Amino acid sequence: MSKQHPLDAAIALTAGPTDNGFSGQITAAYANMVGPYGGVIAAALLNAVQQHVDSRGTPLSITVNYAAPITASSFDITATLQRNNRSSQHWSLALSQAGEVATTATVIMASRRETWSDTEAPAPDVRAAESLPRLPPQGMPAWVSSYDMRIIKGMVTLQEAHQTDDSTSLLWVRDEPPRPLDYVSLLAISDCFFPRIFVRRQQLVPTGTITLTTYFHVGVDALQRQGDKPLLARARANRFHKGFFDQSACLWGEAGELLATSHQLVYYKG
Amino acid sequence: MSKQHPLDAAIALTAGPTDNGFSGQITAAYANMVGPYGGVIAAALLNAVQQHVDSRGTPLSITVNYAAPITASSFDITATLQRNNRSSQHWSLALSQAGEVATTATVIMASRRETWSDTEAPAPDVRAAESLPRLPPQGMPAWVSSYDMRIIKGMVTLQEAHQTDDSTSLLWVRDEPPRPLDYVSLLAISDCFFPRIFVRRQQLVPTGTITLTTYFHVGVDALQRQGDKPLLARARANRFHKGFFDQSACLWGEAGELLATSHQLVYYKG
Repeated sequence: MSKQHPLDAAIALTAGPTDNGFSGQITAAYANMVGPYGGVIAAALLNAVQQHVDSRGTPLSITVNYAAPITASSFDITATLQRNNRSSQHWSLALSQAGEVATTATVIMASRRETWSDTEAPAPDVRAAESLPRLPPQGMPAWVSSYDMRIIKGMVTLQEAHQTDDSTSLLWVRDEPPRPLDYVSLLAISDCFFPRIFVRRQQLVPTGTITLTTYFHVGVDALQRQGDKPLLARARANRFHKGFFDQSACLWGEAGELLATSHQLVYYKG
Repeated sequence: MSKQHPLDAAIALTAGPTDNGFSGQITAAYANMVGPYGGVIAAALLNAVQQHVDSRGTPLSITVNYAAPITASSFDITATLQRNNRSSQHWSLALSQAGEVATTATVIMASRRETWSDTEAPAPDVRAAESLPRLPPQGMPAWVSSYDMRIIKGMVTLQEAHQTDDSTSLLWVRDEPPRPLDYVSLLAISDCFFPRIFVRRQQLVPTGTITLTTYFHVGVDALQRQGDKPLLARARANRFHKGFFDQSACLWGEAGELLATSHQLVYYKG
């Protein structure tokens, strides 16, 4: 039997006691500075919808609201189908620990069909992943070891000389060990960026994602074409103001296809 | 007694029968091609949180999922405080008609405090609003008459010769009649853009917003400075693919201050 990938272990859920109930366990592989990496919590929530007996279609959109710290213990998820349409489903979710809601989410599932299509956000022209060094995960939170990241722009050096007026980050990223891309791993990767304020100020300050929204732009066929190759990922901020900044990200496949866009609002001090 | 502004009439709610319950009535002033303008539904949901007896802080983020068509009749909203933190609140909402959920939402309320701040998305340098003609609302859905829009870029002419490779829209926009800006009106305005596919293809095709997320970047002081002056609003698409396109928007105050960013995913045919 092949060894389970750490991502699959981190989002593994046991169904019950009702159709809407699931339970899981926070794992060490995706530990962050405080609590688990937010991308893996999002992936566990999406996994609950995908495993639900009433689930139809493929993921279109998810919003995750990180309401309270999550501890390294067990968690419960409830997934409620709020509206079941012919070609879309609207789900509401809550993740609880010890009976207290720690995370809420909404998920939209949909069926895709052929239409006129076009992409307006082209993938930047960059050096190949294999020509760049992997970001050394030593001294970083555990989740960084669960990704192979090769930074093209927006390195966090903590050196004042590297402060700029532009917090944009651009990197190649894939699961480590490699894992064929699916919706849950694409979602987890959409949260892979270091906080924009670390890049901008080249300082570590307390931060925490408050809400994350990821839009999936492709069907299963495009995910299968991507396989376990690295994604090109870019994140930008629009504004840092009075304790909150935003981030907007694009995630392209290796062939330059835009697979997902993702937005978040982040709390910061300092 | 001064006449109530049409926006305030459209989002007016009666509280009850429980603390979490509210009811309202769809009005004609914001009618869209099918059902009401989505921005005013979002504003009614945010209004429910703001009117709730347990509401604290000011709006930080809202996600609205448009799950089913809304008819021109009465509606009920339930607003549930899922988590009440010292400086933030997480709310879940549902809007129902005749007992069926038509819209779900999550809202985050927060208190803001002074920090290091900066804006990375500058307002484009454009012609003054008063030097441009108002978009004639004749022949348009009713909600267009509820805004004064002055298009700088991205006009929908329905002429094939105006098709371009870039669906970006840029316009000045304010409530009509003028109304001092607050969170509900800023939220409603964040949905004011014609569908990107109309701009891109210069054709009308069936479309509908499926999910909208708006981040509020400012406190009450900045809204008060803005007053009833026009906002500069820009919307872009990243990808149109298999029946869905995304839109990302920035909304700047007249003085160039970034007040909100907003993202949505839209269904389209064609």
